[in-house]
Amino acid sequence: MKLNVDFGERGYDIIIEAGGLARLGEFVNLKRKVMVIRDGGVPCEYVQRVLDQCESGFSAVVPQGEGSKSLKTFGFLLGELLKYGFGRGDLVVAVGGGVVGDLAGYVASSYMRGIDFVNCPTTTLSQIDSSIGGKVAVNLQDEFGTVTKNVVGAFYQPKLVLIDTDTLKTLPKRHFVAGLAEAIKAGLIYDAKLFEMFEDFSLDDENMDEKLVEILYSSLSVKKAFVEEDECETGVRAALNFGHTIGHGIESANLGELYHGECVALGMLPMISEDLKPRLLKIYENLGLPTRISYDGDEIFEIMKHDKKAKGENMKVVRVDEIGKYYFDTVPTCELRAVIGDGIK
Amino acid sequence: MKLNVDFGERGYDIIIEAGGLARLGEFVNLKRKVMVIRDGGVPCEYVQRVLDQCESGFSAVVPQGEGSKSLKTFGFLLGELLKYGFGRGDLVVAVGGGVVGDLAGYVASSYMRGIDFVNCPTTTLSQIDSSIGGKVAVNLQDEFGTVTKNVVGAFYQPKLVLIDTDTLKTLPKRHFVAGLAEAIKAGLIYDAKLFEMFEDFSLDDENMDEKLVEILYSSLSVKKAFVEEDECETGVRAALNFGHTIGHGIESANLGELYHGECVALGMLPMISEDLKPRLLKIYENLGLPTRISYDGDEIFEIMKHDKKAKGENMKVVRVDEIGKYYFDTVPTCELRAVIGDGIK
Repeated sequence: MKLNVDFGERGYDIIIEAGGLARLGEFVNLKRKVMVIRDGGVPCEYVQRVLDQCESGFSAVVPQGEGSKSLKTFGFLLGELLKYGFGRGDLVVAVGGGVVGDLAGYVASSYMRGIDFVNCPTTTLSQIDSSIGGKVAVNLQDEFGTVTKNVVGAFYQPKLVLIDTDTLKTLPKRHFVAGLAEAIKAGLIYDAKLFEMFEDFSLDDENMDEKLVEILYSSLSVKKAFVEEDECETGVRAALNFGHTIGHGIESANLGELYHGECVALGMLPMISEDLKPRLLKIYENLGLPTRISYDGDEIFEIMKHDKKAKGENMKVVRVDEIGKYYFDTVPTCELRAVIGDGIK
Repeated sequence: MKLNVDFGERGYDIIIEAGGLARLGEFVNLKRKVMVIRDGGVPCEYVQRVLDQCESGFSAVVPQGEGSKSLKTFGFLLGELLKYGFGRGDLVVAVGGGVVGDLAGYVASSYMRGIDFVNCPTTTLSQIDSSIGGKVAVNLQDEFGTVTKNVVGAFYQPKLVLIDTDTLKTLPKRHFVAGLAEAIKAGLIYDAKLFEMFEDFSLDDENMDEKLVEILYSSLSVKKAFVEEDECETGVRAALNFGHTIGHGIESANLGELYHGECVALGMLPMISEDLKPRLLKIYENLGLPTRISYDGDEIFEIMKHDKKAKGENMKVVRVDEIGKYYFDTVPTCELRAVIGDGIK
């Protein structure tokens, strides 16, 4: 199954195919130097499947987790490319989740001012969301140890995104489910049919593989529509941040070590109309996503104000009152404090 | 005097104006957070002239010299922007030579995936050459201490280039002269009239100010023509590397601590036809540019092969047999060793 993201010269295909990693060379030229980057949580046989198709393949491993999205790891990987004599015509391949994709993509965008990049996301979250759209980045830590996410990066389109759904089979269940939150988000803001699929969805479904491909395809189609219209996130693309304003706050406060998707799931709840809540909560319960959380509202509020999307006295947020239809709302920053409350119940 | 670099949405003006720094706010919006970056060799009053026009101005100083084009300094400057709460709508201004422009431009291109950048070059070299074209970068040092120039960076266009020719008056004479080599290069490859200006040019000329503006304007027009046609250096823009293949080798070998422009001047000599040499050497002698150098040809050759433009068995070089007309020549890498010889005499 294939989608094409239409950015003219910078356009690229998204291939969704079980077992696709072992056939990467059919979709992109591997007859050049190839650096495959994964993190320690990605089974090394996935990388091997790519390397087996290369004449001049190299690999690099970074530690698992958000900590690898740092300037230090960025410098390490650039040094590896230089050490092995990579040139302008060579290739970086990411095999892993969003951390690896964001990091490897930023490395590829920066080495010699940009070499080819192929993203092979291996988690639900990255397959549904972060692997397309061309946002690559690392985080920045200040002198007090506070980390600001994605504050250093670029808009850089991959040459190809290859989604091998087989890789999801080794993903822990909680990780798998958390990533689906971004698909639920896509449904809520833009695709009622996709949302309704989740109302009739079970993790034990016997047609799971087919349904998953359908969810991936629909979610990516939503994302594609937004990024094509607004490559550099100056307008409508901000709708994709639905649930992320409060979600990022919860994630940064690191409450109970929630996953990104779980935080987004929670962050969407205060941003939908009351009558939609029962339907959304039922999906969460069915999948095992969190439905409530207590927090220090002042702390979340401070983090949100520090967030890069905060500008002056007002904040732009995304709301959904009707499934499949988002709208932008400008909220005085002080009123947002009331929306945050002291938890999501 | 004004030129416009036509990159559509990413187009920008180049303003050439004595005393322009004190009027920067007439050309670009300074009513936002502004970070002015200079190196230790740039008089701080230049920065003050900009800060005096800002409501929310900050400044950062990096050590003078190529060593500041490092990932470490890059990280430091990004941290400064974060510390002072810079947002997507804010501005980075470079005041200094090519090192500051390349570094600050790369910082601006990377912070929040790109914020506005204004370049105010203060040296002949940067006014003539490096401040336009959108190539921003830092160097990378390997584990053995070998530095590879400009291997980490981006193509990122400034919002404005402001050339205040008054800043050249504080530039040491040797530094001033070395930068003119890039203007001589522009004449050799594309503009015979510009080259001929140098045949009738003296550093004591009583109309120096006017002649200088003419040289700047003509040189920038040449560069503009190439970069407009080939923004990302995939084709004709490589002609601007005339003299740089051997020049970079000499520069990297760090022989007698020659300046970049001096290395380019030397590097052009083996790449022009024999009958042009006397005319070019006369210009060098008149200006006080070096006309000869001895070196270990094997060392220069090794550095050149390591250079990012080296690809496989052949190297593409730029030659000039007739003033104002360049051509590309593909030379077997082994033959290039003979061209390099053991010095330029």
